[in-house]
Amino acid sequence: MSAAEPPPPVFVLVEPQMGENIGAAARAMWNFGLDRMRLVAPRDGWPNSRAAATASGAGRVLDGAGVFASTAAALADLTHVFATTARPREMTKPVLTPEQAMREARALAAAGERVGVLFGPERAGLVNDDVALADAIISVPVNPDFASLNLGQCVLLTAYEWRREAVPAAPETLEMPRTRRASQVEVERLWAHWDARLSEAGFFFPDHKAEVMRLNLRNLLARMAATTADVQTLHGVLRQLVRQAGHGGFAAEPGGGRADEA
Amino acid sequence: MSAAEPPPPVFVLVEPQMGENIGAAARAMWNFGLDRMRLVAPRDGWPNSRAAATASGAGRVLDGAGVFASTAAALADLTHVFATTARPREMTKPVLTPEQAMREARALAAAGERVGVLFGPERAGLVNDDVALADAIISVPVNPDFASLNLGQCVLLTAYEWRREAVPAAPETLEMPRTRRASQVEVERLWAHWDARLSEAGFFFPDHKAEVMRLNLRNLLARMAATTADVQTLHGVLRQLVRQAGHGGFAAEPGGGRADEA
Repeated sequence: MSAAEPPPPVFVLVEPQMGENIGAAARAMWNFGLDRMRLVAPRDGWPNSRAAATASGAGRVLDGAGVFASTAAALADLTHVFATTARPREMTKPVLTPEQAMREARALAAAGERVGVLFGPERAGLVNDDVALADAIISVPVNPDFASLNLGQCVLLTAYEWRREAVPAAPETLEMPRTRRASQVEVERLWAHWDARLSEAGFFFPDHKAEVMRLNLRNLLARMAATTADVQTLHGVLRQLVRQAGHGGFAAEPGGGRADEA
Repeated sequence: MSAAEPPPPVFVLVEPQMGENIGAAARAMWNFGLDRMRLVAPRDGWPNSRAAATASGAGRVLDGAGVFASTAAALADLTHVFATTARPREMTKPVLTPEQAMREARALAAAGERVGVLFGPERAGLVNDDVALADAIISVPVNPDFASLNLGQCVLLTAYEWRREAVPAAPETLEMPRTRRASQVEVERLWAHWDARLSEAGFFFPDHKAEVMRLNLRNLLARMAATTADVQTLHGVLRQLVRQAGHGGFAAEPGGGRADEA
């Protein structure tokens, strides 16, 4: 993260029940670089060995987690709070998607606000008294016929959106290990090689279709975005097929024709 | 969903191990309205009672799941495939975020393409031979210090992005007049043809490089986004070169080998 990255929001788990779910939430957070967790009255006390076992690799999130007796105490120093809910709460509050909420959270954090997100217990979700403490509600736009996100999934999607909003319009990247895109002249030479051999082989037939056949093949070559290694491979493919022709049979004659070292 | 909603992508789970994870994937999908699942060689057979128990409420996804013996068979009728990977694969393919990939998937589906997303087994992820079948890679932008998304989480985020992208931005389109993208099975047959003839010609030499040489060629084929007409052309190219070999010379022997009428 850059120096300009604002501090991530605090994720507050209210009365979580299973240690495994606390650990899973820690992993989900740390996957996206969030490490500020608070716990309100965890059912099985704290620390929790099952939470630690599940969190493996994301233990630092648990190590830094603060434990509070009430939701109000956990939120005391925060200036802006979102509450995640699965169902409408009949309250007059903004209801945001995770995307909208984390975009807003990022702007608030960048302006020096201290932002938190509330997550309710596994089964029942947040009680209305806790939702009432929040400035806005986050509701994931799930299938109306099947809304069954669990705690870990809700934490995951919210953390993902925080991170996603950090990288505005990431460019598509083309993974190209140890090689580079072939230059136009390399592709032209490759085409000339294939054109010559295919012409000799009588491929471009009948004559009145030869032009469009050539055009289609050149388009294919252009579209494959060949690397220099690919170009060598395709020279080798052709040489080996034609070498056979010179010998009138299928005796393998290795050497020379192949070049793919990538 | 509106009437204009394009069909959602097929999610293909390759060699999933635990039934619970298949069930969790079904729930994650159905939360966002996706119900088209395929399974490649599930470890514990099919149907799987643990998958059914975990999926509760999303059983319709499992009920409709097709089971296939190989990844190639599961992809046979699809025209555009994304592969999810956690680590770089040293292949020359576009690498997209889930956001970019699902935006593209939505545009492709709206244009009548049949889109799929590959998910690998729980521990190891997809093998390179499966990644090679894909047009592009999906990589979730996780914390570089802690990348530990599990299968269910990866399915969840991808399904979430499909749903979130319900209003597609102006898509990049590939102009394809009077033709359509070749299906996976057409491309597989094309590859089998080339593989057989190149093997006979002794191209894959030396032996210890044969595997990577084949992988590179398959990646080239996937990248060129061939149309059905292109596939026929490339069958014809090969037939014509090999026909020569049978006659031991360069006498043009037209007919049969060409098919490009586009």
